[in-house]
Amino acid sequence: MSQLVTIALDAMGGDHAPDMVVQGADVASLRHPEARFLLVGDEPRLARLLERHARLAAVCELRHAEDMVGGDDRPSAALRRGRKTSMRKAIDAVKAGEADGIVSAGNTGALMAMAKTVLKMLPGIHRPAIASTAPTMRGEVVMLDLGANIECTADSLVQFAVMGEVFARTVLGVVKPTVGILNVGIETTKGNDVVRGAARVLETGRLPIEFHGFIEGDDITRGTVDVVVTDGFTGNVALKTAEGTARLYSQFLRAAFRQSLVARLGYLLARRALQGVRDRLDPRRYNGGMLLGLNGIVVKSHGGTDALGFANAIGFAVDMAKHGFNDKVIAEIHQFHADLVAENKAAAV
Amino acid sequence: MSQLVTIALDAMGGDHAPDMVVQGADVASLRHPEARFLLVGDEPRLARLLERHARLAAVCELRHAEDMVGGDDRPSAALRRGRKTSMRKAIDAVKAGEADGIVSAGNTGALMAMAKTVLKMLPGIHRPAIASTAPTMRGEVVMLDLGANIECTADSLVQFAVMGEVFARTVLGVVKPTVGILNVGIETTKGNDVVRGAARVLETGRLPIEFHGFIEGDDITRGTVDVVVTDGFTGNVALKTAEGTARLYSQFLRAAFRQSLVARLGYLLARRALQGVRDRLDPRRYNGGMLLGLNGIVVKSHGGTDALGFANAIGFAVDMAKHGFNDKVIAEIHQFHADLVAENKAAAV
Repeated sequence: MSQLVTIALDAMGGDHAPDMVVQGADVASLRHPEARFLLVGDEPRLARLLERHARLAAVCELRHAEDMVGGDDRPSAALRRGRKTSMRKAIDAVKAGEADGIVSAGNTGALMAMAKTVLKMLPGIHRPAIASTAPTMRGEVVMLDLGANIECTADSLVQFAVMGEVFARTVLGVVKPTVGILNVGIETTKGNDVVRGAARVLETGRLPIEFHGFIEGDDITRGTVDVVVTDGFTGNVALKTAEGTARLYSQFLRAAFRQSLVARLGYLLARRALQGVRDRLDPRRYNGGMLLGLNGIVVKSHGGTDALGFANAIGFAVDMAKHGFNDKVIAEIHQFHADLVAENKAAAV
Repeated sequence: MSQLVTIALDAMGGDHAPDMVVQGADVASLRHPEARFLLVGDEPRLARLLERHARLAAVCELRHAEDMVGGDDRPSAALRRGRKTSMRKAIDAVKAGEADGIVSAGNTGALMAMAKTVLKMLPGIHRPAIASTAPTMRGEVVMLDLGANIECTADSLVQFAVMGEVFARTVLGVVKPTVGILNVGIETTKGNDVVRGAARVLETGRLPIEFHGFIEGDDITRGTVDVVVTDGFTGNVALKTAEGTARLYSQFLRAAFRQSLVARLGYLLARRALQGVRDRLDPRRYNGGMLLGLNGIVVKSHGGTDALGFANAIGFAVDMAKHGFNDKVIAEIHQFHADLVAENKAAAV
């Protein structure tokens, strides 16, 4: 039997919690027989829900939390007054080593603040980043940062590159992932000091990373690289612009199919194929914002998702835990710094 | 008869020049009976092409240019050595008052550098911006900057807002255009100093602009506002990400329709409706990067476009010239500064 992993779940976070969380965990328990769950929240309520999910109940432990973080709570307030919330207690379980990771569909700002305070950063990583996967013409891409850091240094982008590369290799199963930095052109002279500085470091080959160079916005979906590195401002805007464009296209299609009887008939015949397109672009498939760089695995699920989307977010946490994601990041960053020190010593001789 | 406008065309710029330029101008001459053209380039070659376009020939003047700007020429080199190029001579015609605007499908960097040097900026505008229109669920949006300014100040964003608003009002015909600043969230505390600083100025209501506030990436296609204001880095990435996402969706659709015989039949029945969707998203419809803020109307066409796309770029130049776009921008900026001075005086009393 493969190694067991335990995921703590903030059972009270999200628009449809706790029902959606329990149903999502139930789906995940089928997909991941190696997973155990620590369900944190309103215990009597969760116990009643579990009665209807025998499979999950068999691999699940309950932990009571009398309070919960509200969707509009300020991160600072959640941090000060939130010690008894389900979110905090789930993070505490990771800190205590009782769980290998945590998934929450609750308040993003509060989750980031609490996770940073309780778990701290990985050695050698200065700032956490939010990563997510997205569909491309060639498969999938992982992109970071998606909004944790409005302003970034070149060093931060280099660290994002390391984390993204390890993620693509271990979780997405890409053998030799390529990494690109998002820019306004592919020439080395393009962009600002931050992207050019990060590119210079990655070009040295000091890190075991296949650096592609700069990429442009349309390279994201083209699948030019496996890892897209960018600052949180640009990444957030790009991700939401892509979501908006897909929705626009869907709306135009729906309107077109309603245009005439012949078009309606065409739709009926092509319905199954079109469902396939919707499935490939289904936001639930890509539901899971990985908070990378923290000393513990933290995955943020979309607040409005359903059980299938939540199960996918759990899947990311399980995969990261199973593959020792954080240990690999630590080792790579450590080696990078050791090499730098050695080079500097050699240069000084 | 409505007022005549003359547009200078860089006949040698673009992948398929000069044939595409002449054909595009011919289409535009049908659409815009009020337009006259100054076709600048290899005169013998253009004269031969014109023989096949009697309608265009009747409203067109030729001007010889012995040289042309190459697609890979550096802007600085084009600026120094490009005085005899078709691009430069077309810009010179605007400077001399012989033409009301210029359209080129040539090298963007060279066009920007030459236009800035020859035409100079509009009074009160510090930096030019590239603007483009895009489809939304409610109609069209104009977005700027799309790459002229990698880094922007709050003042620049305010000036972009003025130019975008005048464009939406005069060229797109929106009666009271709303303006939004692209950000990572809609709350006033979100983002960096640049977007927050610009928002503070626009919120005062000192400018005759309907300021909506901050918008997110998915608001672009939702049609939340008529004008999207952003820095050139974010705008360039967002625009190309949107283009890439639309292409991804199209590719998924094509693959789906090929999946089975039934799906193929469905496609055949819905073909006309699907063509309508393609038309609504056709990049040629939105072909035209307006270089705003210059003391002259300058429109950059995509280099790889065809005659229809080029005709659309000409259409933007004609509309801006007809509606006195630059005069309206000057008046609005002037009024804004006059109000500021008056307020400061009043405050000093």
